[in-house]
Amino acid sequence: MRIVLDAMGSDQHPGPDVEGAVLAAREYGDTIILVGDRATIERELGRHDTTGLTLEIVHAPQKIVMTDKPAAVGRGKPESSMHIGLGLVKDGQGDAFVTAGNTGAALAVATLHKLHRIQGVHRPALSTILSLGGQSIVLLDVGANTDTRAEWLLQYGLMGSIYAERALKRSRPRVALLSNGEEAGKGTALVQEAAELLTGSGVNFIGNAEPKEILHGQVDVAVMDGFSGNVMIKTLEALAQVVFDLIRQELMVDTRSKVAGLLAKPAFRRVHRQIDPFEIGGAPLLGVDGVVIIGHGRSNAVAVKNAIRQARLAVEGQVVDAIRQGLTQAPAIQEQSD
Amino acid sequence: MRIVLDAMGSDQHPGPDVEGAVLAAREYGDTIILVGDRATIERELGRHDTTGLTLEIVHAPQKIVMTDKPAAVGRGKPESSMHIGLGLVKDGQGDAFVTAGNTGAALAVATLHKLHRIQGVHRPALSTILSLGGQSIVLLDVGANTDTRAEWLLQYGLMGSIYAERALKRSRPRVALLSNGEEAGKGTALVQEAAELLTGSGVNFIGNAEPKEILHGQVDVAVMDGFSGNVMIKTLEALAQVVFDLIRQELMVDTRSKVAGLLAKPAFRRVHRQIDPFEIGGAPLLGVDGVVIIGHGRSNAVAVKNAIRQARLAVEGQVVDAIRQGLTQAPAIQEQSD
Repeated sequence: MRIVLDAMGSDQHPGPDVEGAVLAAREYGDTIILVGDRATIERELGRHDTTGLTLEIVHAPQKIVMTDKPAAVGRGKPESSMHIGLGLVKDGQGDAFVTAGNTGAALAVATLHKLHRIQGVHRPALSTILSLGGQSIVLLDVGANTDTRAEWLLQYGLMGSIYAERALKRSRPRVALLSNGEEAGKGTALVQEAAELLTGSGVNFIGNAEPKEILHGQVDVAVMDGFSGNVMIKTLEALAQVVFDLIRQELMVDTRSKVAGLLAKPAFRRVHRQIDPFEIGGAPLLGVDGVVIIGHGRSNAVAVKNAIRQARLAVEGQVVDAIRQGLTQAPAIQEQSD
Repeated sequence: MRIVLDAMGSDQHPGPDVEGAVLAAREYGDTIILVGDRATIERELGRHDTTGLTLEIVHAPQKIVMTDKPAAVGRGKPESSMHIGLGLVKDGQGDAFVTAGNTGAALAVATLHKLHRIQGVHRPALSTILSLGGQSIVLLDVGANTDTRAEWLLQYGLMGSIYAERALKRSRPRVALLSNGEEAGKGTALVQEAAELLTGSGVNFIGNAEPKEILHGQVDVAVMDGFSGNVMIKTLEALAQVVFDLIRQELMVDTRSKVAGLLAKPAFRRVHRQIDPFEIGGAPLLGVDGVVIIGHGRSNAVAVKNAIRQARLAVEGQVVDAIRQGLTQAPAIQEQSD
C-alpha cells in the first residue's frame, strides 16, 4: 500500500509527521510518501533509523498553516503539500492521503480542487472517531457543513455505516441521529425529516440518541448536522481539558495531594489512554473520491502513525468503492435536485 | 420573601425538597411554601427541627413525574404541585417558584397554563448556569425551543444579560453567540442573522464563542438555539460522568491506585465542587411573567437550597420587571410579527 502523508501538517511539523511516517513504515511495511519541503524532510528523516523502510519524498514548495483561510488556500497556495499530496491520490500514485493540518483547508482542497465528490454525494462530511472504553464510535458531520438538509444527513448515515462496517469491522452498525431526546418526534424539523428518510433506507437506523447514549457506545454511528456536531466535539475537548486541568491543579495544593498525584500516575495514564483522541489518530473525510484521513493539529508521532493506520483500514475495506456502490444501490439515497 | 417550592419535584422527592426548604428557611429567613401532598410533607417535616422557621404547606392532590409527557400534563393534571405552585406565584401569594421536577412539564405549565409570557417575549428560554472555577456563566436556550428564529436569539441575549447583571451581579455582562468558530461569518445562517441583530442592540455583544471560550469563562452569557444548547449541556454532563467513572474504576485496580484514591479524596472533592451543578442548584426559565427556577431531577437537599437561593437573587434583582422594561426600551427587540 502507498500512503501519502502531509509532512507539513501538524502544529509541530515536520517532527511528529516524519516520525509518525517512520513508525508506520516500520510497523505496517507500507510505502509512505512524505510530501513537503524536501530539504526539511530529509533533515528530519536523518534523525531516525530508516533502514529497510520504504519512505519516498515528493517536494512541495508551499505549505498551509493553521491560520490560513480555507477559502483562500485552494487557489492561493496551489503548490502546497496538501494540493500535491491529494493530487498524488487523484492520479493513482497513492492509495490514501493523511494530514494533521488545517482541517478546513484539507476539506476545501480535497473537495473543491483535487478529489471532488463521489458521484451522487450531496456534501462530503467530516467525521470524528471517539474511542471510549475501547469502543469506537463514528460521529459525522462534525463541521464540514453548517446549514444542513435532511438528504445530506441520510447520506451521512449511509457513509458512516459503511465506514464502521468496512474500516472498523462492525457488523450491521447501529446508526442513530443526535437529538435532544431519544423519543421519536424529538428534535428539530431537520432531525425529524432525516429520521423518516433513514427509516427503511437500508442502514440499521435505531432512532434518536442523546450525547449520553453516544458516549456510552450504545450507537456505532452518530449522525448530526455539522453545527451541532462541531459544538459536541468541541465541548468534549474543552471539558476534558477543564477537568484534567482542575485535577492537576488540585493535586498540587498540599503534600497529601502531591503524594496522591504521584501514586495515581499509572491510573491517570490508563484513564487518559481510554479517552485519548490520539489513540485513533485521525478520522475520514467521507464522500470525497479517495481516502482522506484528517488528524488533530496537536498530533504527536504516535497519533500520526495511528492516522496512517486509519487510512490503511479504509483502503483495505474499500470504503470509497463501497460508498459509490451504496449510493447506486439505494435509490432513495441518490442525488436529488440539490 | 415568599418562595414557593414544589415538594414533589426531585427524583427522590419529597426528601431532598423538604430538607432543602428547611435549610433555606434557616439560612435566609424567608417563608418557604411547600406544595404537594400535605400528609407526605408533614411526615417529612417531622424529621427536621423547624423551630422558628416559617414553612407553610399548600396541598396539591396530584404530582407530575419524570415520565409524564409535558404536552399532556397541562390539562391532564390540573391539580399538580406545579400547577398549584405556579398559580400561587401568579396570584401574588408567592414571589418565585422553584422545582427540581420534570423540566418540560414545568416549562409547559408555566408558559402555557399559569404565568404565560412577559408581553413582547417571543419564546421563553430555559437557561443553565455553569459554575466553573468559581465563575458563573449563563447558557440559554438549553432546550425550551428547538427550531429557533434569530429574533428569539436576540431576546435570549437580552434576557440572559439582564439575569447576569441583576441576579449574578455582573456589570455589563459579555454576551456571545455559540458558534463553530470565533470569527464573524462563522456559524449557521441563524447564527449570522442573530449576530447582526445583537450588534447594536444595546447588550454587550462580544461576538461568536466556541465551547472552549464559554467553559473558560470568557463570556458571561452564551446564547444558543435550544437544540445545540441541549446537545452542549448533555455532552458536558455525559462526559463528566464518563471521566469520573473511568477515574473511579482505574483507582480500584491495584493497591497503589487504591492508596492514591484514598489520599486524593479531598482533592477530588475540591475538583467536584468546582464543576458541580448542584452548587448553583437551578437556573431560571426566562421570559415568563414570574420567577421560575428549575433544578436537576437528581438534586439533593443542598441543591434544592441553592435553587431557592437563585430564586431569591432573581426576586431581589427584579429580573422580571427588568426584562419587561428592557423589551420596551429596546425597540429592535420588541415583538415582531411572529
